[in-house]
Amino acid sequence: MKNNREQKESGSRLEGRNAVLEALRSGRTVDKLYVQVGNHDGPIQTILREAKKQGSVISFVTKERLNQMSETGNHQGVIALAASYQYAEVEEILKRAREKNEPPFLILLDGIEDPHNLGAIIRTANLAGAHGVIVTKHRAAGLTAVVARASAGAINYTPVAKVTNLGHTIDQLKKEGIWFVCADMDGTLLYDLDLTGPIGLVIGNEGEGVSRLIREKCDFTASIPMKGDINSLNASVAAGVLAYEIVRQRG
Amino acid sequence: MKNNREQKESGSRLEGRNAVLEALRSGRTVDKLYVQVGNHDGPIQTILREAKKQGSVISFVTKERLNQMSETGNHQGVIALAASYQYAEVEEILKRAREKNEPPFLILLDGIEDPHNLGAIIRTANLAGAHGVIVTKHRAAGLTAVVARASAGAINYTPVAKVTNLGHTIDQLKKEGIWFVCADMDGTLLYDLDLTGPIGLVIGNEGEGVSRLIREKCDFTASIPMKGDINSLNASVAAGVLAYEIVRQRG
Repeated sequence: MKNNREQKESGSRLEGRNAVLEALRSGRTVDKLYVQVGNHDGPIQTILREAKKQGSVISFVTKERLNQMSETGNHQGVIALAASYQYAEVEEILKRAREKNEPPFLILLDGIEDPHNLGAIIRTANLAGAHGVIVTKHRAAGLTAVVARASAGAINYTPVAKVTNLGHTIDQLKKEGIWFVCADMDGTLLYDLDLTGPIGLVIGNEGEGVSRLIREKCDFTASIPMKGDINSLNASVAAGVLAYEIVRQRG
Repeated sequence: MKNNREQKESGSRLEGRNAVLEALRSGRTVDKLYVQVGNHDGPIQTILREAKKQGSVISFVTKERLNQMSETGNHQGVIALAASYQYAEVEEILKRAREKNEPPFLILLDGIEDPHNLGAIIRTANLAGAHGVIVTKHRAAGLTAVVARASAGAINYTPVAKVTNLGHTIDQLKKEGIWFVCADMDGTLLYDLDLTGPIGLVIGNEGEGVSRLIREKCDFTASIPMKGDINSLNASVAAGVLAYEIVRQRG
Protein backbone atom coordinates (compact mmCIF):
# COMPACT_ATOMS: atom_id res chain seq x y z
CA MET A 1 0.00 0.00 0.00
CA LYS A 2 2.75 2.38 0.97
CA ASN A 3 4.50 1.53 -2.23
CA ASN A 4 1.40 2.46 -4.22
CA ARG A 5 1.03 5.80 -2.55
CA GLU A 6 4.66 6.60 -3.23
CA GLN A 7 4.21 5.75 -6.89
CA LYS A 8 1.27 8.08 -7.15
CA GLU A 9 3.23 10.87 -5.51
CA SER A 10 6.10 10.65 -7.94
CA GLY A 11 6.45 12.66 -11.12
CA SER A 12 8.82 9.96 -12.27
CA ARG A 13 11.03 7.47 -10.49
CA LEU A 14 14.76 7.26 -11.04
CA GLU A 15 16.79 4.28 -9.86
CA GLY A 16 20.53 3.76 -9.60
CA ARG A 17 23.43 6.09 -8.97
CA ASN A 18 24.04 7.32 -12.49
CA ALA A 19 20.41 7.98 -13.30
CA VAL A 20 19.89 9.94 -10.08
CA LEU A 21 23.13 11.90 -10.30
CA GLU A 22 22.53 12.75 -13.95
CA ALA A 23 19.05 14.04 -13.15
CA LEU A 24 20.34 16.16 -10.26
CA ARG A 25 23.19 17.58 -12.29
CA SER A 26 20.96 18.45 -15.23
CA GLY A 27 18.90 20.58 -12.87
CA ARG A 28 15.92 18.23 -12.88
CA THR A 29 13.90 18.61 -9.68
CA VAL A 30 14.22 15.71 -7.25
CA ASP A 31 11.47 16.08 -4.65
CA LYS A 32 12.37 13.00 -2.63
CA LEU A 33 15.51 10.95 -2.36
CA TYR A 34 15.63 7.52 -0.72
CA VAL A 35 19.10 6.33 0.26
CA GLN A 36 20.02 2.98 1.78
CA VAL A 37 21.17 3.37 5.40
CA GLY A 38 24.86 2.76 5.94
CA ASN A 39 25.88 3.72 2.40
CA HIS A 40 28.58 6.37 2.68
CA ASP A 41 30.78 5.93 -0.37
CA GLY A 42 31.83 8.70 -2.76
CA PRO A 43 29.03 8.54 -5.34
CA ILE A 44 26.37 8.51 -2.59
CA GLN A 45 28.04 11.49 -0.91
CA THR A 46 27.97 13.35 -4.22
CA ILE A 47 24.30 12.53 -4.72
CA LEU A 48 23.48 13.66 -1.18
CA ARG A 49 25.39 16.90 -1.65
CA GLU A 50 23.61 17.72 -4.91
CA ALA A 51 20.25 16.76 -3.44
CA LYS A 52 20.79 18.99 -0.40
CA LYS A 53 21.82 21.86 -2.64
CA GLN A 54 18.51 21.43 -4.42
CA GLY A 55 16.48 21.17 -1.24
CA SER A 56 15.25 17.60 -1.88
CA VAL A 57 13.67 15.74 1.02
CA ILE A 58 16.07 12.93 1.94
CA SER A 59 15.09 9.69 3.69
CA PHE A 60 17.46 6.96 4.81
CA VAL A 61 15.73 3.58 4.47
CA THR A 62 16.61 -0.10 4.69
CA LYS A 63 17.72 -2.17 1.71
CA GLU A 64 14.48 -4.17 2.04
CA ARG A 65 12.41 -1.02 1.69
CA LEU A 66 14.32 0.03 -1.43
CA ASN A 67 13.90 -3.48 -2.89
CA GLN A 68 10.18 -3.16 -2.29
CA MET A 69 10.04 0.27 -3.98
CA SER A 70 12.25 -0.70 -6.89
CA GLU A 71 10.76 -1.33 -10.31
CA THR A 72 14.01 -2.19 -12.07
CA GLY A 73 15.42 -4.42 -9.33
CA ASN A 74 18.71 -2.54 -9.69
CA HIS A 75 18.52 0.53 -7.42
CA GLN A 76 22.17 0.45 -6.22
CA GLY A 77 21.06 1.94 -2.88
CA VAL A 78 19.31 5.02 -4.23
CA ILE A 79 15.87 5.91 -5.60
CA ALA A 80 14.73 9.42 -6.45
CA LEU A 81 11.29 10.81 -7.09
CA ALA A 82 11.77 13.52 -9.68
CA ALA A 83 9.10 16.15 -10.04
CA SER A 84 7.95 17.41 -13.35
CA TYR A 85 8.62 21.13 -13.36
CA GLN A 86 9.47 21.59 -16.98
CA TYR A 87 10.87 24.72 -18.52
CA ALA A 88 8.65 26.24 -21.17
CA GLU A 89 9.64 27.86 -24.46
CA VAL A 90 9.48 31.64 -24.84
CA GLU A 91 7.00 31.12 -27.69
CA GLU A 92 4.58 29.35 -25.30
CA ILE A 93 4.59 32.44 -23.08
CA LEU A 94 3.71 34.70 -26.01
CA LYS A 95 1.00 32.24 -27.05
CA ARG A 96 -0.61 32.52 -23.59
CA ALA A 97 -0.85 36.29 -24.02
CA ARG A 98 -2.42 35.89 -27.49
CA GLU A 99 -4.92 33.32 -26.22
CA LYS A 100 -5.98 35.67 -23.42
CA ASN A 101 -6.09 38.54 -25.89
CA GLU A 102 -3.84 40.60 -23.62
CA PRO A 103 -0.69 42.61 -24.40
CA PRO A 104 2.26 40.41 -23.41
CA PHE A 105 3.56 40.92 -19.86
CA LEU A 106 6.82 39.07 -19.23
CA ILE A 107 9.18 39.11 -16.26
CA LEU A 108 12.85 38.55 -17.20
CA LEU A 109 15.39 37.69 -14.53
CA ASP A 110 18.97 38.75 -15.17
CA GLY A 111 20.65 36.32 -12.76
CA ILE A 112 18.39 35.79 -9.72
CA GLU A 113 20.43 33.35 -7.62
CA ASP A 114 18.40 32.91 -4.44
CA PRO A 115 15.78 30.16 -4.84
CA HIS A 116 13.45 31.90 -2.34
CA ASN A 117 13.54 35.03 -4.48
CA LEU A 118 12.95 33.04 -7.67
CA GLY A 119 9.99 31.25 -6.07
CA ALA A 120 8.51 34.49 -4.72
CA ILE A 121 8.86 36.14 -8.15
CA ILE A 122 7.10 33.26 -9.93
CA ARG A 123 4.36 33.60 -7.29
CA THR A 124 4.12 37.35 -7.98
CA ALA A 125 4.16 36.77 -11.76
CA ASN A 126 1.21 34.42 -11.42
CA LEU A 127 -0.88 36.81 -9.31
CA ALA A 128 0.02 39.95 -11.24
CA GLY A 129 -1.16 38.28 -14.43
CA ALA A 130 2.23 38.05 -16.14
CA HIS A 131 2.20 35.48 -18.93
CA GLY A 132 5.52 33.97 -18.00
CA VAL A 133 8.99 34.32 -16.52
CA ILE A 134 12.26 34.10 -18.44
CA VAL A 135 15.43 33.09 -16.61
CA THR A 136 19.01 32.61 -17.73
CA LYS A 137 20.94 29.33 -17.87
CA HIS A 138 23.94 30.68 -16.02
CA ARG A 139 24.34 32.39 -12.67
CA ALA A 140 20.73 31.62 -11.83
CA ALA A 141 18.67 29.40 -9.55
CA GLY A 142 17.04 26.42 -11.30
CA LEU A 143 13.51 25.12 -10.81
CA THR A 144 14.30 23.15 -7.67
CA ALA A 145 12.05 21.89 -4.91
CA VAL A 146 12.89 24.97 -2.82
CA VAL A 147 11.78 27.25 -5.65
CA ALA A 148 8.60 25.26 -6.13
CA ARG A 149 7.79 25.54 -2.43
CA ALA A 150 8.57 29.27 -2.35
CA SER A 151 6.34 29.76 -5.39
CA ALA A 152 3.39 28.40 -3.37
CA GLY A 153 2.40 26.25 -6.32
CA ALA A 154 2.56 29.04 -8.92
CA ILE A 155 5.25 27.05 -10.73
CA ASN A 156 2.49 24.69 -11.87
CA TYR A 157 0.64 27.50 -13.64
CA THR A 158 3.09 30.17 -14.76
CA PRO A 159 5.52 29.03 -17.48
CA VAL A 160 9.22 29.62 -16.87
CA ALA A 161 11.51 29.65 -19.91
CA LYS A 162 15.29 29.29 -19.69
CA VAL A 163 17.47 31.06 -22.25
CA THR A 164 21.21 31.08 -22.85
CA ASN A 165 21.56 34.70 -23.90
CA LEU A 166 19.10 37.15 -22.36
CA GLY A 167 20.25 40.03 -24.60
CA HIS A 168 19.53 37.96 -27.69
CA THR A 169 16.08 37.03 -26.35
CA ILE A 170 15.30 40.71 -25.70
CA ASP A 171 16.32 41.56 -29.28
CA GLN A 172 14.00 38.84 -30.60
CA LEU A 173 11.09 39.97 -28.42
CA LYS A 174 11.51 43.59 -29.46
CA LYS A 175 10.67 42.43 -33.00
CA GLU A 176 7.35 41.21 -31.54
CA GLY A 177 6.64 44.76 -30.38
CA ILE A 178 7.49 44.28 -26.72
CA TRP A 179 9.02 47.19 -24.77
CA PHE A 180 11.53 46.55 -22.02
CA VAL A 181 11.81 48.28 -18.68
CA CYS A 182 14.46 47.56 -16.09
CA ALA A 183 14.80 48.72 -12.52
CA ASP A 184 17.69 51.01 -11.69
CA MET A 185 18.25 53.70 -9.08
CA ASP A 186 19.09 56.31 -11.74
CA GLY A 187 15.94 55.72 -13.78
CA THR A 188 12.68 57.61 -14.21
CA LEU A 189 10.29 57.43 -11.25
CA LEU A 190 8.20 54.36 -12.07
CA TYR A 191 4.92 56.23 -11.50
CA ASP A 192 5.87 58.63 -14.32
CA LEU A 193 6.37 55.89 -16.92
CA ASP A 194 3.66 54.55 -19.23
CA LEU A 195 3.71 50.81 -18.53
CA THR A 196 0.44 49.87 -20.24
CA GLY A 197 1.68 48.33 -23.51
CA PRO A 198 3.30 44.96 -24.30
CA ILE A 199 6.04 44.87 -21.70
CA GLY A 200 9.04 42.93 -20.46
CA LEU A 201 10.05 43.78 -16.89
CA VAL A 202 13.73 43.04 -16.23
CA ILE A 203 14.84 42.31 -12.65
CA GLY A 204 18.55 42.22 -11.88
CA ASN A 205 20.79 40.04 -9.78
CA GLU A 206 20.50 40.37 -5.97
CA GLY A 207 23.95 41.84 -5.54
CA GLU A 208 24.75 43.60 -8.77
CA GLY A 209 21.41 44.60 -10.23
CA VAL A 210 20.79 44.53 -13.99
CA SER A 211 23.99 44.02 -15.99
CA ARG A 212 25.17 46.91 -18.17
CA LEU A 213 24.61 45.09 -21.47
CA ILE A 214 21.01 44.27 -20.59
CA ARG A 215 20.34 47.74 -19.15
CA GLU A 216 21.46 49.29 -22.44
CA LYS A 217 18.98 47.13 -24.34
CA CYS A 218 16.06 48.32 -22.20
CA ASP A 219 13.78 51.04 -23.56
CA PHE A 220 13.07 52.53 -20.13
CA THR A 221 14.74 52.51 -16.76
CA ALA A 222 12.37 52.70 -13.80
CA SER A 223 13.38 53.79 -10.35
CA ILE A 224 11.54 52.91 -7.15
CA PRO A 225 11.56 55.81 -4.63
CA MET A 226 14.20 55.17 -1.97
CA LYS A 227 13.65 57.25 1.15
CA GLY A 228 15.85 55.30 3.51
CA ASP A 229 19.40 54.67 4.57
CA ILE A 230 20.23 51.53 2.61
CA ASN A 231 20.70 50.88 -1.10
CA SER A 232 18.10 48.52 -2.46
CA LEU A 233 14.98 46.50 -1.84
CA ASN A 234 15.02 42.72 -1.74
CA ALA A 235 14.90 41.55 -5.39
CA SER A 236 11.53 39.81 -5.05
CA VAL A 237 10.01 42.83 -3.27
CA ALA A 238 11.30 45.15 -6.03
CA ALA A 239 9.80 42.79 -8.64
CA GLY A 240 6.50 42.92 -6.74
CA VAL A 241 6.41 46.72 -6.55
CA LEU A 242 7.20 47.07 -10.27
CA ALA A 243 4.87 44.28 -11.40
CA TYR A 244 1.99 45.80 -9.43
CA GLU A 245 2.62 49.27 -10.83
CA ILE A 246 2.08 47.62 -14.24
CA VAL A 247 -1.12 46.03 -12.87
CA ARG A 248 -2.30 49.41 -11.53
CA GLN A 249 -1.69 51.21 -14.80
CA ARG A 250 -3.29 48.46 -16.87
CA GLY A 251 -6.26 48.21 -14.51
CA MET B 1 45.96 40.61 17.24
CA LYS B 2 43.15 38.24 16.34
CA ASN B 3 41.82 38.61 19.83
CA ASN B 4 41.69 42.38 19.42
CA ARG B 5 39.81 42.20 16.16
CA GLU B 6 37.26 39.89 17.68
CA GLN B 7 36.70 42.29 20.53
CA LYS B 8 36.07 45.14 18.14
CA GLU B 9 33.59 43.04 16.18
CA SER B 10 31.54 42.17 19.21
CA GLY B 11 28.52 44.07 20.44
CA SER B 12 29.18 42.44 23.78
CA ARG B 13 30.90 39.27 24.88
CA LEU B 14 29.18 36.59 26.93
CA GLU B 15 31.13 33.84 28.67
CA GLY B 16 29.98 30.63 30.33
CA ARG B 17 27.06 28.34 29.72
CA ASN B 18 24.39 30.10 31.75
CA ALA B 19 25.16 33.56 30.43
CA VAL B 20 25.11 32.37 26.82
CA LEU B 21 22.00 30.22 27.17
CA GLU B 22 20.14 32.99 28.99
CA ALA B 23 20.98 35.46 26.24
CA LEU B 24 19.85 33.06 23.51
CA ARG B 25 16.61 32.22 25.31
CA SER B 26 15.77 35.85 25.94
CA GLY B 27 15.92 36.41 22.19
CA ARG B 28 19.13 38.42 22.32
CA THR B 29 21.01 38.18 19.04
CA VAL B 30 24.14 36.05 19.14
CA ASP B 31 26.13 36.73 15.98
CA LYS B 32 28.99 34.38 16.70
CA LEU B 33 29.33 31.43 19.00
CA TYR B 34 32.69 29.84 19.90
CA VAL B 35 32.46 26.33 21.32
CA GLN B 36 35.34 24.22 22.59
CA VAL B 37 35.96 21.23 20.29
CA GLY B 38 35.01 17.88 21.79
CA ASN B 39 32.37 19.32 24.14
CA HIS B 40 29.15 17.40 23.52
CA ASP B 41 27.30 17.41 26.84
CA GLY B 42 23.68 18.38 27.36
CA PRO B 43 24.01 22.12 28.10
CA ILE B 44 26.32 22.59 25.08
CA GLN B 45 23.86 20.71 22.86
CA THR B 46 21.08 23.01 24.06
CA ILE B 47 23.19 26.09 23.38
CA LEU B 48 24.06 24.80 19.90
CA ARG B 49 20.42 24.07 19.15
CA GLU B 50 19.27 27.53 20.23
CA ALA B 51 22.13 29.19 18.35
CA LYS B 52 21.32 27.29 15.16
CA LYS B 53 17.67 28.23 15.50
CA GLN B 54 18.79 31.85 15.61
CA GLY B 55 21.18 31.56 12.71
CA SER B 56 24.32 32.34 14.71
CA VAL B 57 27.66 31.62 13.09
CA ILE B 58 29.20 28.74 15.07
CA SER B 59 32.94 28.00 15.33
CA PHE B 60 34.51 25.06 17.10
CA VAL B 61 37.85 26.12 18.58
CA THR B 62 40.48 24.74 20.92
CA LYS B 63 40.47 25.31 24.68
CA GLU B 64 43.64 27.38 24.26
CA ARG B 65 41.92 29.68 21.81
CA LEU B 66 38.98 30.18 24.19
CA ASN B 67 41.38 30.86 27.07
CA GLN B 68 43.03 33.50 24.92
CA MET B 69 39.70 35.12 24.08
CA SER B 70 38.32 34.94 27.60
CA GLU B 71 38.11 38.05 29.74
CA THR B 72 36.66 36.37 32.83
CA GLY B 73 38.90 33.30 32.76
CA ASN B 74 35.77 31.18 33.27
CA HIS B 75 34.30 30.47 29.83
CA GLN B 76 33.22 26.84 30.54
CA GLY B 77 33.85 25.98 26.88
CA VAL B 78 31.62 28.63 25.31
CA ILE B 79 31.92 32.30 24.36
CA ALA B 80 29.26 34.23 22.45
CA LEU B 81 29.46 37.56 20.66
CA ALA B 82 26.05 39.12 21.10
CA ALA B 83 25.01 41.84 18.69
CA SER B 84 23.18 44.90 19.75
CA TYR B 85 19.93 44.90 17.83
CA GLN B 86 17.71 46.42 20.44
CA TYR B 87 13.97 46.65 20.27
CA ALA B 88 12.65 50.19 20.34
CA GLU B 89 9.57 51.55 22.11
CA VAL B 90 6.46 52.44 20.11
CA GLU B 91 6.81 56.01 21.41
CA GLU B 92 10.26 56.31 19.77
CA ILE B 93 8.70 55.45 16.41
CA LEU B 94 6.09 58.18 16.80
CA LYS B 95 8.80 60.60 17.85
CA ARG B 96 10.72 59.93 14.62
CA ALA B 97 7.63 60.90 12.61
CA ARG B 98 7.22 64.11 14.65
CA GLU B 99 10.89 65.01 14.22
CA LYS B 100 10.63 64.58 10.45
CA ASN B 101 7.37 66.52 10.48
CA GLU B 102 5.66 63.69 8.59
CA PRO B 103 2.35 61.92 9.25
CA PRO B 104 3.22 58.65 11.04
CA PHE B 105 3.68 55.62 8.78
CA LEU B 106 3.99 52.37 10.74
CA ILE B 107 4.14 48.76 9.61
CA LEU B 108 2.60 46.29 12.08
CA LEU B 109 3.24 42.57 11.73
CA ASP B 110 0.56 40.23 13.03
CA GLY B 111 2.74 37.15 13.43
CA ILE B 112 5.40 37.10 10.70
CA GLU B 113 7.31 33.89 11.48
CA ASP B 114 9.85 33.61 8.66
CA PRO B 115 13.05 35.54 9.48
CA HIS B 116 13.70 36.20 5.77
CA ASN B 117 10.29 37.82 5.48
CA LEU B 118 10.84 39.87 8.64
CA GLY B 119 14.22 41.07 7.36
CA ALA B 120 12.84 41.91 3.91
CA ILE B 121 9.95 43.86 5.50
CA ILE B 122 12.31 45.91 7.71
CA ARG B 123 14.32 46.61 4.54
CA THR B 124 11.16 47.74 2.74
CA ALA B 125 10.05 49.83 5.74
CA ASN B 126 13.37 51.65 5.67
CA LEU B 127 13.23 52.44 1.94
CA ALA B 128 9.53 53.29 1.84
CA GLY B 129 10.10 55.85 4.58
CA ALA B 130 8.10 54.11 7.30
CA HIS B 131 9.02 55.40 10.75
CA GLY B 132 9.16 51.97 12.32
CA VAL B 133 7.94 48.39 12.50
CA ILE B 134 5.89 46.84 15.31
CA VAL B 135 6.06 43.10 15.91
CA THR B 136 4.40 40.81 18.44
CA LYS B 137 6.12 38.89 21.22
CA HIS B 138 4.47 35.60 20.38
CA ARG B 139 4.30 33.56 17.18
CA ALA B 140 6.83 35.87 15.58
CA ALA B 141 10.45 35.86 14.43
CA GLY B 142 12.81 37.78 16.73
CA LEU B 143 15.61 40.12 15.70
CA THR B 144 18.11 37.36 14.97
CA ALA B 145 21.25 37.38 12.87
CA VAL B 146 19.29 35.93 9.93
CA VAL B 147 16.80 38.79 10.14
CA ALA B 148 19.59 41.35 10.34
CA ARG B 149 21.23 39.87 7.25
CA ALA B 150 17.94 39.72 5.33
CA SER B 151 17.29 43.35 6.26
CA ALA B 152 20.50 44.35 4.42
CA GLY B 153 21.45 46.55 7.36
CA ALA B 154 18.09 48.34 7.62
CA ILE B 155 17.75 46.95 11.15
CA ASN B 156 20.40 49.50 12.18
CA TYR B 157 18.23 52.42 11.04
CA THR B 158 14.58 51.49 11.27
CA PRO B 159 13.30 50.97 14.83
CA VAL B 160 11.45 47.73 15.58
CA ALA B 161 9.18 47.67 18.63
CA LYS B 162 7.89 44.47 20.21
CA VAL B 163 4.48 44.46 21.88
CA THR B 164 2.57 41.83 23.82
CA ASN B 165 -0.89 42.67 22.59
CA LEU B 166 -1.16 44.08 19.07
CA GLY B 167 -4.85 44.87 19.43
CA HIS B 168 -4.16 46.97 22.52
CA THR B 169 -1.37 48.81 20.70
CA ILE B 170 -3.70 49.57 17.80
CA ASP B 171 -6.29 50.98 20.24
CA GLN B 172 -3.65 53.22 21.79
CA LEU B 173 -2.37 54.41 18.42
CA LYS B 174 -5.89 55.21 17.22
CA LYS B 175 -6.02 57.78 20.03
CA GLU B 176 -2.99 59.41 18.37
CA GLY B 177 -5.03 59.83 15.21
CA ILE B 178 -3.54 56.94 13.25
CA TRP B 179 -5.75 54.99 10.82
CA PHE B 180 -5.20 51.29 10.27
CA VAL B 181 -5.35 49.36 7.04
CA CYS B 182 -4.87 45.61 6.71
CA ALA B 183 -4.50 43.44 3.66
CA ASP B 184 -7.27 40.98 2.91
CA MET B 185 -8.62 39.39 -0.28
CA ASP B 186 -12.14 40.65 0.43
CA GLY B 187 -11.11 44.28 0.93
CA THR B 188 -11.37 47.40 -1.20
CA LEU B 189 -8.97 47.56 -4.14
CA LEU B 190 -5.93 49.27 -2.64
CA TYR B 191 -5.76 51.84 -5.46
CA ASP B 192 -9.24 53.07 -4.49
CA LEU B 193 -8.32 53.80 -0.86
CA ASP B 194 -7.00 57.11 0.45
CA LEU B 195 -3.74 56.13 2.14
CA THR B 196 -2.26 59.61 2.57
CA GLY B 197 -2.92 60.29 6.27
CA PRO B 198 -1.24 58.98 9.44
CA ILE B 199 -1.31 55.25 8.78
CA GLY B 200 -0.58 51.86 10.28
CA LEU B 201 -0.23 49.09 7.68
CA VAL B 202 -0.99 45.65 9.14
CA ILE B 203 0.57 42.58 7.51
CA GLY B 204 -0.68 39.14 8.53
CA ASN B 205 0.93 35.81 9.23
CA GLU B 206 2.35 33.87 6.26
CA GLY B 207 -0.17 31.06 6.51
CA GLU B 208 -3.26 32.57 8.08
CA GLY B 209 -3.18 36.23 7.16
CA VAL B 210 -4.37 38.91 9.58
CA SER B 211 -6.21 37.44 12.58
CA ARG B 212 -9.92 38.17 12.92
CA LEU B 213 -9.57 40.30 16.06
CA ILE B 214 -6.97 42.54 14.44
CA ARG B 215 -8.86 42.73 11.14
CA GLU B 216 -11.93 43.96 13.00
CA LYS B 217 -9.89 46.75 14.58
CA CYS B 218 -8.68 48.03 11.20
CA ASP B 219 -10.41 51.03 9.64
CA PHE B 220 -9.90 49.80 6.09
CA THR B 221 -9.23 46.50 4.41
CA ALA B 222 -7.14 46.71 1.26
CA SER B 223 -7.05 44.04 -1.40
CA ILE B 224 -4.23 43.54 -3.88
CA PRO B 225 -5.52 42.47 -7.33
CA MET B 226 -5.07 38.71 -7.75
CA LYS B 227 -5.24 37.64 -11.37
CA GLY B 228 -3.69 34.22 -11.02
CA ASP B 229 -4.32 30.68 -9.94
CA ILE B 230 -2.97 30.70 -6.39
CA ASN B 231 -4.16 32.41 -3.22
CA SER B 232 -1.69 34.94 -1.96
CA LEU B 233 1.56 36.78 -2.48
CA ASN B 234 4.59 36.15 -0.33
CA ALA B 235 4.10 38.21 2.87
CA SER B 236 7.11 40.45 2.27
CA VAL B 237 6.09 41.06 -1.35
CA ALA B 238 2.55 41.97 -0.24
CA ALA B 239 4.03 44.34 2.35
CA GLY B 240 6.15 45.92 -0.40
CA VAL B 241 3.23 46.40 -2.79
CA LEU B 242 1.09 47.99 -0.04
CA ALA B 243 3.87 50.13 1.41
CA TYR B 244 4.74 51.50 -2.03
CA GLU B 245 1.11 52.30 -2.81
CA ILE B 246 1.28 54.48 0.33
CA VAL B 247 4.51 56.02 -1.02
CA ARG B 248 2.90 56.66 -4.41
CA GLN B 249 -0.16 58.33 -2.90
CA ARG B 250 1.90 60.42 -0.49
CA GLY B 251 4.36 61.41 -3.25
